[in-house]
Amino acid sequence: MKGWRPASCVAPPYDAASRRHFTSSRALLRQATIADVLRSNAQQDEIEVNGWVRSVRKQKRIAFVHVGDGSTTEPLQAVLKPEQAADLSYGTAISLKGLWQASTGGKQSHELQVSTIRLLGENNAESSPLQPKYQTAEFLRTIPHLRPRIPTNALLLRLRSHVIATITRFFNDEGFVQTHTPIITSSDCEGAGEVFAVSSNASKESDQKLRPESEGQVEHFFRSPKYLTVSAQLHLEALAQAVEKVWTLSPTFRAEHSDTPRHLSEFYMLEAELCFVEDMASVMDLVERMLRTVAINLTLSSLGRELAQSKHWLDMPAIEDAQRASDQDLLQKRWKGMAAENWPRITYDNAIQHLQTAASEGKITFVFKPTIEDGLQAEHERYLAQSIGQGKPVFVTDYPMDQKPFYMPPSTATINSEGTSDTAACFDLLVPDLCELVGGSMREHRSEDLLAAMQRKGVMGESLEWYQDLRKYGSVPHGGFGLGFDRLLCYLSGVGSVRDIVAFPRWYGRCDC
Amino acid sequence: MKGWRPASCVAPPYDAASRRHFTSSRALLRQATIADVLRSNAQQDEIEVNGWVRSVRKQKRIAFVHVGDGSTTEPLQAVLKPEQAADLSYGTAISLKGLWQASTGGKQSHELQVSTIRLLGENNAESSPLQPKYQTAEFLRTIPHLRPRIPTNALLLRLRSHVIATITRFFNDEGFVQTHTPIITSSDCEGAGEVFAVSSNASKESDQKLRPESEGQVEHFFRSPKYLTVSAQLHLEALAQAVEKVWTLSPTFRAEHSDTPRHLSEFYMLEAELCFVEDMASVMDLVERMLRTVAINLTLSSLGRELAQSKHWLDMPAIEDAQRASDQDLLQKRWKGMAAENWPRITYDNAIQHLQTAASEGKITFVFKPTIEDGLQAEHERYLAQSIGQGKPVFVTDYPMDQKPFYMPPSTATINSEGTSDTAACFDLLVPDLCELVGGSMREHRSEDLLAAMQRKGVMGESLEWYQDLRKYGSVPHGGFGLGFDRLLCYLSGVGSVRDIVAFPRWYGRCDC
Repeated sequence: MKGWRPASCVAPPYDAASRRHFTSSRALLRQATIADVLRSNAQQDEIEVNGWVRSVRKQKRIAFVHVGDGSTTEPLQAVLKPEQAADLSYGTAISLKGLWQASTGGKQSHELQVSTIRLLGENNAESSPLQPKYQTAEFLRTIPHLRPRIPTNALLLRLRSHVIATITRFFNDEGFVQTHTPIITSSDCEGAGEVFAVSSNASKESDQKLRPESEGQVEHFFRSPKYLTVSAQLHLEALAQAVEKVWTLSPTFRAEHSDTPRHLSEFYMLEAELCFVEDMASVMDLVERMLRTVAINLTLSSLGRELAQSKHWLDMPAIEDAQRASDQDLLQKRWKGMAAENWPRITYDNAIQHLQTAASEGKITFVFKPTIEDGLQAEHERYLAQSIGQGKPVFVTDYPMDQKPFYMPPSTATINSEGTSDTAACFDLLVPDLCELVGGSMREHRSEDLLAAMQRKGVMGESLEWYQDLRKYGSVPHGGFGLGFDRLLCYLSGVGSVRDIVAFPRWYGRCDC
Repeated sequence: MKGWRPASCVAPPYDAASRRHFTSSRALLRQATIADVLRSNAQQDEIEVNGWVRSVRKQKRIAFVHVGDGSTTEPLQAVLKPEQAADLSYGTAISLKGLWQASTGGKQSHELQVSTIRLLGENNAESSPLQPKYQTAEFLRTIPHLRPRIPTNALLLRLRSHVIATITRFFNDEGFVQTHTPIITSSDCEGAGEVFAVSSNASKESDQKLRPESEGQVEHFFRSPKYLTVSAQLHLEALAQAVEKVWTLSPTFRAEHSDTPRHLSEFYMLEAELCFVEDMASVMDLVERMLRTVAINLTLSSLGRELAQSKHWLDMPAIEDAQRASDQDLLQKRWKGMAAENWPRITYDNAIQHLQTAASEGKITFVFKPTIEDGLQAEHERYLAQSIGQGKPVFVTDYPMDQKPFYMPPSTATINSEGTSDTAACFDLLVPDLCELVGGSMREHRSEDLLAAMQRKGVMGESLEWYQDLRKYGSVPHGGFGLGFDRLLCYLSGVGSVRDIVAFPRWYGRCDC
């Protein structure tokens, strides 16, 4: 046919395994990663690898270059002639060809005897903000676009990917439907949080300030004010009534002015809802199964071994709390606890009693006295996780109704003859050090009771009429949970601040890149 | 230990297969779905299913009830005594127990002889906006919270989940790292699109209008104006330089006032970037492999069979273009084309020539004359997809530089001695009917050339300094692509408008629920 050329590079049929073969074709994409090479037993093989220079050590007749490509924290040692290494510096992108041979010295078993080297792009190593030395976490947060090039930060990217893949498989196997819930919404799920407003009235031209909107009627892009979602829950509840079991891993937003290592303005929440569930234990069972699967998969993976064994890890500048990270067994302890069965479940009332007893027996001193009315403080949660969990995560259930949002129904255990109760059918999951990781509950599915709760909590309004509808036409008992995904990654990795586990963190006053 | 109770319902060790077992425990979650039951050969078994009433047909001594739970478009037939069915209506949530037996009449092979039935919640069937009759797509868009309860709409939810799972596995197998790129950003990737601004200055109290901001200095939450991302590309490029190959499936936003079945204000983009790629063919190969995997997986899945075979599908109110959908073979044709190998690749210049030849030979009449300068119109793309693709998707490559954004480098094929060219190393992937599905390119990785291109295109500014940095410290040849995920689902399902494939669609003037 006139006017078109045949494909210049025909793709082979898809075969995941084939990317591990060492090829010398120009389809660089399908070459081996450095992790592949280091793990392979190939010897005396001609191979080709790409990567960035991690270090250069020049001797009189020989130069040793460590190369990484982010696939492992362990570098590949390349042996070059000094003249081949002349233009190399920290960070240079290179392509190497050579023989993969047993190493005669050093700690590595093999090394690459380089025949040809190719520099791939510019590198002003000296002026780079990123330097191969200790740099504080605070400083690195100012260069989030370069920070992931540190091998341990690259490892955190791979951890996120690994956990997403595990969870996607888990929910797929459990028959859950993964959904995309909206980001721009009318409703504020919790009825309390500070939200971000969305408008189309700022353009590139008025870059320095929003256009004056004080005069007359504001014209909204969506006809009324809209906000960035604080939770996918309400929308998930609607979708659950279509396919029974749904989940999502979506960005959520809070315009809070808080400045802690646990809070961001933009973060990922893993949320799930399931219908035909009449017992909250089923929801907690699901959380347990999911996190146990994550912990077991991580423990068994090569990535887990890298996380746990890497000495780099302990030196990692991005770890804020060096003291905690210095506990070499910390990660294994956390994973083991999460991989264990039968996590303790304790009611809020019993938890308070447990805390009061511990305080009166002098086992612990609290700043805040634990009482039913005042709620659990961080110090209380920490003690509960430690003393009751014994390494395992702990469910605290049945909190007082007045501490919880409008959509939570009364606990069935404490319900009275009028169908009400002082406690809600809800739970928090506490883990050592980090405290709250998951929050979940049954959802009020009785139309009139929901309406009454909304009136009581003052969250009425047109924007939630659709949510009430869900109870009118085929209402069904259901429950669900939300998990702070970035917090989970902090817990699994030992990273002390969510600002260092999120690639481009945003918080009050800070939105770099 | 005092103060805590043992777990009331201990989770069994995680085992995906076990959810298919029929149990009669109160852990309803792990019961069989209706799809499981219909596919099983269990007979004379006592089973328990949950679902919503799709139809009720009462006779003198017997009542037939069709039940669905969203796991399949096919309903389960339940046989009840008329008094058991007394309170049932369209939409009622029920739990049924009974014997699963061979059916004596009707088209179904088996039916459920119900022993006990339980109503689970309120159902005001008569006042429900959703009725078991034809309702227009336009009307259904006003009730997105109820719309997915229509079995064919539930099928679209499952399609999305299925394709996400396939793609997650594909990228995982290919060694790509899944990442979460930021939603709130400073930069406008394309340098042209209308963006949504984000601010924290709207509170619940001032619900009807934004606070006056015209006086003095505006105080920004993030210290300067921020926007909702229009593409993850720039951030992905940063992350690719850490782990070589990255991808994301993230929400993106456009504040365009366009009102077409192809555009939304909020939509999901699948984007990938790969380093150490010097030939754009590698990027196109990746797109081919990915979409081929999706098409093959869908074709082989039970979900695919449901999509292709379901008569419901053809009656589906949510399909806008009934004429197109009436082609029973349409979906199989599309999937077959996408599952085929060796998709045609044609340069833009040759494509224009092809169109001009076709027009001059009278094979087709265009409203717009095809010229190099004016770019491809939708009618041109449609003809290219048809005449060149012959059912397969078609790559059009090497568009004129002046039609493309600043980050695209010159095509290597046409580069001159000064390192410039009139055409960009880029491609669009066109599919029949829908036209553009994917856009990709190499990314300018040479620091000075990028700077010059940015100056030429007028996209300079502090907010993109970090992007220039990526070329200064270990720059590396790389490329990537973006795919409109919701459009892909439209193409795979035959749904004519993205407003019907997205659960809670947002477009100019419309943001329901």
